[in-house]
Amino acid sequence: MGTGRLEAFSDGVLAIILTIMVLQLKVPHDASLSGLTPLIPVFLSYVLSFVYVGIYWNNHHHMLHVTEHVDGAILWANLHLLFWLSLIPFVTGWMGENHFASAPAAVYGFVMLMAAIAYWLLQRVIIRREGHDSLLARATARDLKGKLSPVLYLIAIPMAFVQPAIAGALYVVVALVWLIPDSRIERALATRAA
Amino acid sequence: MGTGRLEAFSDGVLAIILTIMVLQLKVPHDASLSGLTPLIPVFLSYVLSFVYVGIYWNNHHHMLHVTEHVDGAILWANLHLLFWLSLIPFVTGWMGENHFASAPAAVYGFVMLMAAIAYWLLQRVIIRREGHDSLLARATARDLKGKLSPVLYLIAIPMAFVQPAIAGALYVVVALVWLIPDSRIERALATRAA
Amino acid sequence: MGTGRLEAFSDGVLAIILTIMVLQLKVPHDASLSGLTPLIPVFLSYVLSFVYVGIYWNNHHHMLHVTEHVDGAILWANLHLLFWLSLIPFVTGWMGENHFASAPAAVYGFVMLMAAIAYWLLQRVIIRREGHDSLLARATARDLKGKLSPVLYLIAIPMAFVQPAIAGALYVVVALVWLIPDSRIERALATRAA
Amino acid sequence: MGTGRLEAFSDGVLAIILTIMVLQLKVPHDASLSGLTPLIPVFLSYVLSFVYVGIYWNNHHHMLHVTEHVDGAILWANLHLLFWLSLIPFVTGWMGENHFASAPAAVYGFVMLMAAIAYWLLQRVIIRREGHDSLLARATARDLKGKLSPVLYLIAIPMAFVQPAIAGALYVVVALVWLIPDSRIERALATRAA
Repeated sequence: MGTGRLEAFSDGVLAIILTIMVLQLKVPHDASLSGLTPLIPVFLSYVLSFVYVGIYWNNHHHMLHVTEHVDGAILWANLHLLFWLSLIPFVTGWMGENHFASAPAAVYGFVMLMAAIAYWLLQRVIIRREGHDSLLARATARDLKGKLSPVLYLIAIPMAFVQPAIAGALYVVVALVWLIPDSRIERALATRAA
Repeated sequence: MGTGRLEAFSDGVLAIILTIMVLQLKVPHDASLSGLTPLIPVFLSYVLSFVYVGIYWNNHHHMLHVTEHVDGAILWANLHLLFWLSLIPFVTGWMGENHFASAPAAVYGFVMLMAAIAYWLLQRVIIRREGHDSLLARATARDLKGKLSPVLYLIAIPMAFVQPAIAGALYVVVALVWLIPDSRIERALATRAA
Repeated sequence: MGTGRLEAFSDGVLAIILTIMVLQLKVPHDASLSGLTPLIPVFLSYVLSFVYVGIYWNNHHHMLHVTEHVDGAILWANLHLLFWLSLIPFVTGWMGENHFASAPAAVYGFVMLMAAIAYWLLQRVIIRREGHDSLLARATARDLKGKLSPVLYLIAIPMAFVQPAIAGALYVVVALVWLIPDSRIERALATRAA
Repeated sequence: MGTGRLEAFSDGVLAIILTIMVLQLKVPHDASLSGLTPLIPVFLSYVLSFVYVGIYWNNHHHMLHVTEHVDGAILWANLHLLFWLSLIPFVTGWMGENHFASAPAAVYGFVMLMAAIAYWLLQRVIIRREGHDSLLARATARDLKGKLSPVLYLIAIPMAFVQPAIAGALYVVVALVWLIPDSRIERALATRAA
């Protein structure tokens, strides 16, 4: 089976996750500019999560681009990733509405950690099928980012109970690290073309 | 007509069903971890329904993969299946918010039973068009799982009024039985290739 | 330009309309079966609208299947159709929650009338581009159904203020008339193939 | 990488934005026609935003039609555009529910200005990749509309605090200017074909 329908379904779920989050921005009854002030933390958590979902879509796009066939194991590993990503609107809303309090900030990190693990699992399952000599295997051989993110999440989760701002800063750092699209795959593709 | 647009539309509906369910997880006003405690039954029913929708997507994917043409009857049999699946977010929320009480647990089983019947009907309509000698007809000739699930639902529905936990356990059993993707079709494909 | 992206976008909008309607079915706090009783009119209006959206998707699918190219006018005629269809969840909820009262039943008919006109306009715009000798032009030359539906809506709208049940019955009649997929196009395709 | 998945993902997000806006039209409890009166401003702002999202989809469709390859920069420029568009349901609801009051009308213009800038940035990034001799570069060389819209938004934003009706009128003017699909690209395509 080709990757077409897996990509289409994942695109659908990611597009809805992205757009559902904006529903957390409840329309204020106050018609003045100051009516927006209480929404600022909700808006900031929306921006953060929008970037995260954008990163996942971007990397997913790159990864599936170098995948040729899917089987049952890949379909389920992908659904497992979508499960953790589907919880992002909930934790985003909880964190935003509570002004980045400790527990919501820690749970946010936990969901992000599980999503990172799910992504890594999906990558392993695809590489197992495509072969260790495949483009994807070589492109992700070192995978510094993939190893750094879970470590930063694991630091951020307990830190949220000490000082939530540190956890928040770590989430921004992870997002910035990933914001650069997966140039490893683009480089590997260029090498192959050469 | 090819199956492309039928698959795209079904993917869209299934992706939205999956993601709408998470809206039942209402963001709590309590910012402590204990604020999540009342959400545990809603979360568990979400996990169960996520797996069910994942199974339907997975099997639908496999079934359409071996279908070559669609006609009006197939389009309507597919819409009929989507109708019952569209009720899953409602019954999931009702069951979760009422901590797996009898009536919601029974209605959950009823919707699952109707979805299973709708899936079976869709399969029959496709086989009628593709021919009894088709890949799909041979792959689903025995169809033990397809016969077992409705029986388990039919046991679970009255059981929900005796002891809802038994109904819940039966729904988990059905999910586990199906969690293994439809290897019958993969096997039939492999046989053809050989 | 091909029809691919127009179909994908329309599928997305129709899939969301279909699934958003189910959000009108608010999860009751009552955990007994009788908790579902007040939802019956909402559920019936959901079933009616689900069938209507299914009919539109079905006919849209058939119509675009015999369309080869799209231009700006077709894109806008299609968006115009999607606009009226996007109001279906609103009128469905209004009619269901008010137990098929006069005004909601009349407004429901009005939205359906506008959607029917928008569909007819889209069909005209496509035929103008494809030519009066095209498959679509010949398949819809008589178009009895397309002429009957607006007439029935125009009767149902004032009737809703006399006796809403008659309006409701007329909406069911229109749905039944259309439930049979657009065999005209299938027949025209078969003729061409012969 | 081809443009397929970028288009599919954007279509998904735009389709959801379009349909989520209609959720702002809250079903009234009043079953009479006068129950709809308070919804008129919400409805008018919905119509305006529907046309805007339609314009973006239309132009996006045309732009990607003449784009051959996408890279990481294009993916992110596209996500940036989708971010600003995702705020449209929020500002539409805020403006509609407050009967086009000053602050909501100004913020509406601000979001539209940022979306216009994001669209222009996406266009630049694509042209940089496709080459200044590309079809898109030539089709958008003069780009009168693209230069006029931000100017009109910049006038409308302060005007909203003087007289919101003027801001509203300017938004309608921008929509009318763009309602004519991007015939520049269609013309450029026709020239190439000749």
